[in-house]
Amino acid sequence: MNLKITNCLTALLLAGVFCFAQSDNNVVEDFKPSPVNQPGREYPMVNSEGRVRVQISAPNANSVQLDIGAVKYDLVKDENGVWTGESAPQDEGFHYYQLNIDGASVPDPGSLFFYGASRWGSGIEVPAHDQDFYALKNVPHGQVREHIYFSETNQSTRRCFIYTPPGYDKNLTKRYPVLYLQHGGGENETGWSAQGKAGLIMDNLIAEGGAKPFIIVMANGNWRMPRPPAGERPSGPWPPSGWADGFMKSLLNEIIPMVDTNYRTIADQNNRAMAGLSMGGMQTRVITLANPDVFSQVGMFSGGSISLEDVEKSPGFKKNVKLLFISYGSRELENPRRGPWGDPKENTEALKADGMNTHFYVSPNTAHEWQSWRRSLYQFAQLVFQN
Amino acid sequence: MNLKITNCLTALLLAGVFCFAQSDNNVVEDFKPSPVNQPGREYPMVNSEGRVRVQISAPNANSVQLDIGAVKYDLVKDENGVWTGESAPQDEGFHYYQLNIDGASVPDPGSLFFYGASRWGSGIEVPAHDQDFYALKNVPHGQVREHIYFSETNQSTRRCFIYTPPGYDKNLTKRYPVLYLQHGGGENETGWSAQGKAGLIMDNLIAEGGAKPFIIVMANGNWRMPRPPAGERPSGPWPPSGWADGFMKSLLNEIIPMVDTNYRTIADQNNRAMAGLSMGGMQTRVITLANPDVFSQVGMFSGGSISLEDVEKSPGFKKNVKLLFISYGSRELENPRRGPWGDPKENTEALKADGMNTHFYVSPNTAHEWQSWRRSLYQFAQLVFQN
Repeated sequence: MNLKITNCLTALLLAGVFCFAQSDNNVVEDFKPSPVNQPGREYPMVNSEGRVRVQISAPNANSVQLDIGAVKYDLVKDENGVWTGESAPQDEGFHYYQLNIDGASVPDPGSLFFYGASRWGSGIEVPAHDQDFYALKNVPHGQVREHIYFSETNQSTRRCFIYTPPGYDKNLTKRYPVLYLQHGGGENETGWSAQGKAGLIMDNLIAEGGAKPFIIVMANGNWRMPRPPAGERPSGPWPPSGWADGFMKSLLNEIIPMVDTNYRTIADQNNRAMAGLSMGGMQTRVITLANPDVFSQVGMFSGGSISLEDVEKSPGFKKNVKLLFISYGSRELENPRRGPWGDPKENTEALKADGMNTHFYVSPNTAHEWQSWRRSLYQFAQLVFQN
Repeated sequence: MNLKITNCLTALLLAGVFCFAQSDNNVVEDFKPSPVNQPGREYPMVNSEGRVRVQISAPNANSVQLDIGAVKYDLVKDENGVWTGESAPQDEGFHYYQLNIDGASVPDPGSLFFYGASRWGSGIEVPAHDQDFYALKNVPHGQVREHIYFSETNQSTRRCFIYTPPGYDKNLTKRYPVLYLQHGGGENETGWSAQGKAGLIMDNLIAEGGAKPFIIVMANGNWRMPRPPAGERPSGPWPPSGWADGFMKSLLNEIIPMVDTNYRTIADQNNRAMAGLSMGGMQTRVITLANPDVFSQVGMFSGGSISLEDVEKSPGFKKNVKLLFISYGSRELENPRRGPWGDPKENTEALKADGMNTHFYVSPNTAHEWQSWRRSLYQFAQLVFQN
């Protein structure tokens, strides 16, 4: 409260009446440009409470709103036709948002753009107390490579991004384990390296000796569903053997062989991991349960869990899988809903009691959002390929 | 004209009164979604005349405009609050544009976003008669790598993109020439591989044997200007030795050594080229004239030219430079302005008459825009490293 008063007094001296308008809302006036603004842009800004303040010139508009976290906040117009306003405090980390101008939902031209919610749109970064682990530092950096390939399964040209660790191009005889890391629903192959900061998380961990260097493959998991054979009506439920089949087939038959051919991988089960967030976690669940001879390390971030019953139905899973990592944002667990796979913590503890190497991680004070998944990757990366 | 009438009749049958509104403008009703739309988006669209049609829902707006090619076109609102309208015909190729909603200039949420005009914003692709040379095909693809590094010169972490040709990771003993390829003013290191389609141009050329495989380095050429020594006032003009010095120092002292250390380059003058568009062409001019011992092949796309007098002032340039390629869009030459470097065609022909291997290319029916530069790279890539 002292901070707010001090700031208000400073603002009063600087801005006169403006301070009174803002002080009614108890907004702390220490806004700074978001770290993911476009070059040279002052707005959007974020304050120490995590409030997001946007500003846009729209002199002829009737109404402008900030649309973030499923809430629309009204902006206020000044005498120059510039609209300004802010949100309630947001969680630490990355959030998608947009502006609404007289009913049109549009990206904020001040922010960088990210793919999520099935669109390229604005993103904001609320500085986090633990942001050091994904900060851009003067350490050796790996590379993120755009890898274009033709998929016979999908009959289309597709793209994945591949992280190769620092030093990959120096020692040309060294081979590396591989993590297949999947995005969530409404996202694509760009998510993990852009808003997920996977490359920076790994660079920093490797620099301090906190993780074994490994390759990360970030493929597009949005996959055309299988179709009934031409001219035939499906007998029984369709798709016949699960919604993840399209991506599973492509991953097993195309992507993994392509990666093992083109990169210096250690091409065995012991050195192959799969993880994903949300939909990607659910894909990880289906694919690794069906293929415990292919993957030895499994991570599911906000994407369900694996139960004793699941393991009993998957021959080889218990014996072959050396790491099972399940995580959630704490806010996802505040109103626990037992999904089709049961309570994630109970499931994971039951498997641990049964002798599996399982880990359950909860990201503090975050929801179903990227800060949970950055932290999950940070935790998972320190555990994977250690056995 | 027949085409227009036929289309109008078709539209009349399909859409009734709508046709009359449009037929006044003689708009050919064969619009298709732009190839650089966001996934699943119908708008923006482009027709066979090169008109750009945009559409956005803005039920409470007073006015919506399409802002493209420095012209603002009014959109028309329908009874559902959806605004639609189109531009005059645009040149073939890629164009930046934006929407204006009640005075607010914003990206079109239907398009992908590109960096140009000093912002991330909307882009549109007008299909070109020669678009096959940069089409995404089922051919072996090189990779575009994000390379992060710390610049001592700039005291900041910077980024470049590196294209490695198909097969780079297969034959680990093969070494390659390198082209340093620069973007224009208001653009950045993403331009050449995104809207410039440099990777696809090279993949296609290499697949048909039309170009020698080489590495392309696309660095950020926006560089902090040198400052006077602390506490001193500059004596004479500042910056002391040219506006391109900052980038030149970084290129010569940091970027080239970094590339030669981390990639399998042929690290000599004979296998090192520099080219750029607009500002990048001007940087290429200054840097190669000052360093003919470093570069043997020079390309300037819509970025000036090199005169006999320039060459006479640069010891070694005539002897050491094996290729000088100058290009412009035809519309840039329609109203010839003699810049500080003279008439580009005359300059280039004078150097050819003097015995240098020069080429002058004009991109048909394009202006100072990406289609000129895609074609320029396509031409240059077939000439470079052939001697």
